[in-house]
Amino acid sequence: MSKDRIVIVGGGACGAKVAARARRNAADTEIIMIEKGPYVSYAGCGMPYYIAGAVEHSSDLMSMLWGTVRDEKYFKESKDVTVYTNTVVESIAPSSKTIKIMAASGNSKTIDYTKLVLATGAKAKIPPVKGIHLKNVFVLRSLEQAEEIRKAVESEGMEKAVLVGAGRVGLELADALNAQGLDITIVEMAEQVLPDVLDRDMSQYPINTIHSEKIALFMQESVVELAGDGSGKVKKVITNKRELNADIVIFAVGIKPDVDLARSADVKIGKTGAIEVDEYMQTNIPDIYAGGDCVESENIVTGEKISMPLGSVANKHGRVVANNITGIKDTFRGVVGSCILMSLGLKIGKTGLTEKQAKRFGYQTETCLSVTRDTSHFLAGSKNIVIKLITSVSDRKLLGAQIAGTGDIAKRLDVAATALSFKAKIDDVASLDLCYAPPFAGAMDSIIHTANIMRNKLAGSVKTIKPLEVRQKLNTKEDFILLDLRTKEEITEGRGIDDARMMSVPLENLRTRIDELPRDKEIICTCQYGTRAYEAYTILKSKGFRHINYMECGMFGYTWLS
Amino acid sequence: MSKDRIVIVGGGACGAKVAARARRNAADTEIIMIEKGPYVSYAGCGMPYYIAGAVEHSSDLMSMLWGTVRDEKYFKESKDVTVYTNTVVESIAPSSKTIKIMAASGNSKTIDYTKLVLATGAKAKIPPVKGIHLKNVFVLRSLEQAEEIRKAVESEGMEKAVLVGAGRVGLELADALNAQGLDITIVEMAEQVLPDVLDRDMSQYPINTIHSEKIALFMQESVVELAGDGSGKVKKVITNKRELNADIVIFAVGIKPDVDLARSADVKIGKTGAIEVDEYMQTNIPDIYAGGDCVESENIVTGEKISMPLGSVANKHGRVVANNITGIKDTFRGVVGSCILMSLGLKIGKTGLTEKQAKRFGYQTETCLSVTRDTSHFLAGSKNIVIKLITSVSDRKLLGAQIAGTGDIAKRLDVAATALSFKAKIDDVASLDLCYAPPFAGAMDSIIHTANIMRNKLAGSVKTIKPLEVRQKLNTKEDFILLDLRTKEEITEGRGIDDARMMSVPLENLRTRIDELPRDKEIICTCQYGTRAYEAYTILKSKGFRHINYMECGMFGYTWLS
Repeated sequence: MSKDRIVIVGGGACGAKVAARARRNAADTEIIMIEKGPYVSYAGCGMPYYIAGAVEHSSDLMSMLWGTVRDEKYFKESKDVTVYTNTVVESIAPSSKTIKIMAASGNSKTIDYTKLVLATGAKAKIPPVKGIHLKNVFVLRSLEQAEEIRKAVESEGMEKAVLVGAGRVGLELADALNAQGLDITIVEMAEQVLPDVLDRDMSQYPINTIHSEKIALFMQESVVELAGDGSGKVKKVITNKRELNADIVIFAVGIKPDVDLARSADVKIGKTGAIEVDEYMQTNIPDIYAGGDCVESENIVTGEKISMPLGSVANKHGRVVANNITGIKDTFRGVVGSCILMSLGLKIGKTGLTEKQAKRFGYQTETCLSVTRDTSHFLAGSKNIVIKLITSVSDRKLLGAQIAGTGDIAKRLDVAATALSFKAKIDDVASLDLCYAPPFAGAMDSIIHTANIMRNKLAGSVKTIKPLEVRQKLNTKEDFILLDLRTKEEITEGRGIDDARMMSVPLENLRTRIDELPRDKEIICTCQYGTRAYEAYTILKSKGFRHINYMECGMFGYTWLS
Repeated sequence: MSKDRIVIVGGGACGAKVAARARRNAADTEIIMIEKGPYVSYAGCGMPYYIAGAVEHSSDLMSMLWGTVRDEKYFKESKDVTVYTNTVVESIAPSSKTIKIMAASGNSKTIDYTKLVLATGAKAKIPPVKGIHLKNVFVLRSLEQAEEIRKAVESEGMEKAVLVGAGRVGLELADALNAQGLDITIVEMAEQVLPDVLDRDMSQYPINTIHSEKIALFMQESVVELAGDGSGKVKKVITNKRELNADIVIFAVGIKPDVDLARSADVKIGKTGAIEVDEYMQTNIPDIYAGGDCVESENIVTGEKISMPLGSVANKHGRVVANNITGIKDTFRGVVGSCILMSLGLKIGKTGLTEKQAKRFGYQTETCLSVTRDTSHFLAGSKNIVIKLITSVSDRKLLGAQIAGTGDIAKRLDVAATALSFKAKIDDVASLDLCYAPPFAGAMDSIIHTANIMRNKLAGSVKTIKPLEVRQKLNTKEDFILLDLRTKEEITEGRGIDDARMMSVPLENLRTRIDELPRDKEIICTCQYGTRAYEAYTILKSKGFRHINYMECGMFGYTWLS
């Protein structure tokens, strides 16, 4: 080998980034990228949009903004990077710094490397159920699979789809198949959707959205068998509770890091099941680096290692790897655990820890929910967003945020993600000088407003109750008052709750009618969004009422979060 | 006075916030809010949208989400706050802790206070030009003025508007009057629009947008006189360069803090001309606090005091004031100087320092410009945003960000604002774990991409040139090559520059055609957005070319930023 040679295993987001950046850093190094599939450098996160038909061609997912497709020719001509597609790396010999590759033709050869980069990505989990190999049963992990799914979805007679798994990809696929006009049933093992993204309370928002879209959703249910139509096509999904007709079945039950090659070369695998790397993205083996979905990253919030298989993370990994293998020292700082998705008109995301994760990690947490408009409410087009913040009680640190809504959630999530990177306290968040003009935010931005609610709760100046708890209480015979502070007009619009424990006193009449309220019963204040309920709570408190609280997010919360 | 009494002077954003929060903290304190105008607690920033007709009634700007109008009755019934409108505070006597007020009726009386809050806001600057009192000549500072402007705009025969001042309010008004179908001319004294928001280079984006909307814009020009039609209505605006016909003239030439009352009571005024307060929002006079547009705030980036008259800041001031005057210690942390606006379809904002401000403050700065799509470009509806970052060379700290575009600028600005609050370095920004899915961002978010360009520049690995400089060079006889890396198809769409110094070599052919390029001339690489130009730059550099650079933002930048 006359000059340095970088060999990259895997042509996905991380691999392609390593190739491009390494070339810019090191003009004279030979760079080879090896990909087992036919395509390289495509936007995997765009696949649901391709299946939906919102992206016309699969090649659009590997095109530059000006139309050039990132194929072997592009990498050679523009970047002087040699790409082998449809080529498998069979083994690594770290002692001789060589790898053995095999092309689709069956020809194999040995290649020397100066630096080796493992960017082998992740693979879809495929449950070992009977009938999994029937026609029109899919997983979605590669662009080839996306092409097959799109073709199947658009084929004649395709009516009923069963989606197994209501995680991020599952819900993006639900959106895609809904856009394609299919009749959808979702089967999820957990007692909620998006278990890695949302706490149980927040998960009611997408659950209620799914219901409102007339999509069947069965939770705490698992697929036990797939039955065919006799000609090899799938016909039925049999769960532990029912049988579902299906013309197409897609399993979206998670992915696992593809570490087989790494393991065979004694590259250390971490507790998460992904490759362990140091801050320079180097593995335990000299001159072998790794990045992307096959490695684990440090969670900045907790210090523990987690798997965060996302294109955004993979790209950052790739830059750090490329810098280090070309002599520019660079470190990867870790992740805070940010993710986002859109499905059925609802935008959903989280950053940091969920309440469940925080508790599992030993934090004593305080949480709060708010619903606000994403822009000034007097402008047409302002939309609701629901924010849940999680704070550590002992040191007031923000631990996480979950946000869902039809409005602009991404901005507030990214603000929270940035704050988490700096280990912000809730008071820091409340003090942020965010941009304000009516088309962009309220004067008190949604996240600042929510941080202030949290400060009130931490100070002990308010006591609240979650919508889900109120629903549970209403389902009992317990005696309490659900005090509705809305105007008569709002209630008669049919947004009340038909229960004898409801009592209506519009906020503006509360001070004069306060003697009508019993002092011996729990009073739960509510209104449309929670603002007036909070106001009423402070009034009752000042008048000596003791057994009181207010429902976070009010009747909006009752409708969507319980 | 039997119980504590909080008296608030001014019923705007800060005053109303103080009243509401103080009531929640202190049930038994008497709270009086005194407002010189007829309205309290309205969204002043919403006035341009009301003038545009996008907000139907002026009362919509003082309505709660559920429709209740925040008037005297609302404050009394819901919050037990007494509001005096149309009432002027004539004097303060700190020694006796009293104020003297006078109602519109002419009746005056003296009121005791326990704590006094000055939330007197700001007033519009009115230039002392002849004819300023003619009919249909306005400033916009109060809702009453907005009502008069809306009425005038919608009156018969209203055709030609002259806007004086192209700052934030000026451009929001241009948008409003444009929506109302008026023929608009803007007159601005500075050599650019938005001088407090954007540097000269970035200001070309709104300037070119104004031109593309067929709105006349005259910069470096000032109004010397207004001429009437004989019946007392304005007819002409006479500048130092021309005469303009006008049916309506609005001056939006800035505001100044309203500190007359404070000054008369020996409340200390800071260098900025606004009231000086400590971190508790307390003035130099015991028991007198102040907040909102009439006070100055500390700029977290520089430590200096600045005036930041915005509803978002005023609300935060109000909460801190209310807490401190009710016995809950709280501090205001300062601002980073964030602002945003929308005008003529363009969204524009900044946070932190502009390059000009940073230089004036003594920083040695590096800057970079980028243009990216706000969401994944393969999805329909992705839009351009231009980001300018400013960094301190010595310590790599982010100093400021300016962002403009038709896409989602607010998210990236708020991320930058959050980062600035934590005194982030550019490397911190590049490492942020922001939320990624195709409808929300690219895999490398726009701000991360731009931070990486900055890191390349700080590392000295690239040399760039700004579009504005390229235009200036093209206007000279200087000999250089403007190397266009776009495809033939892109250029023949008519987006080239007709100049003999242009040379076209599509990026994919550059490596094979490299010998066609002269080594003795400066070569400026360009393409549509700058990405291929950067790639070409690295290729030329690796081949030993020395006198090279690339144009930031490419031809997009040349069209919109020069």
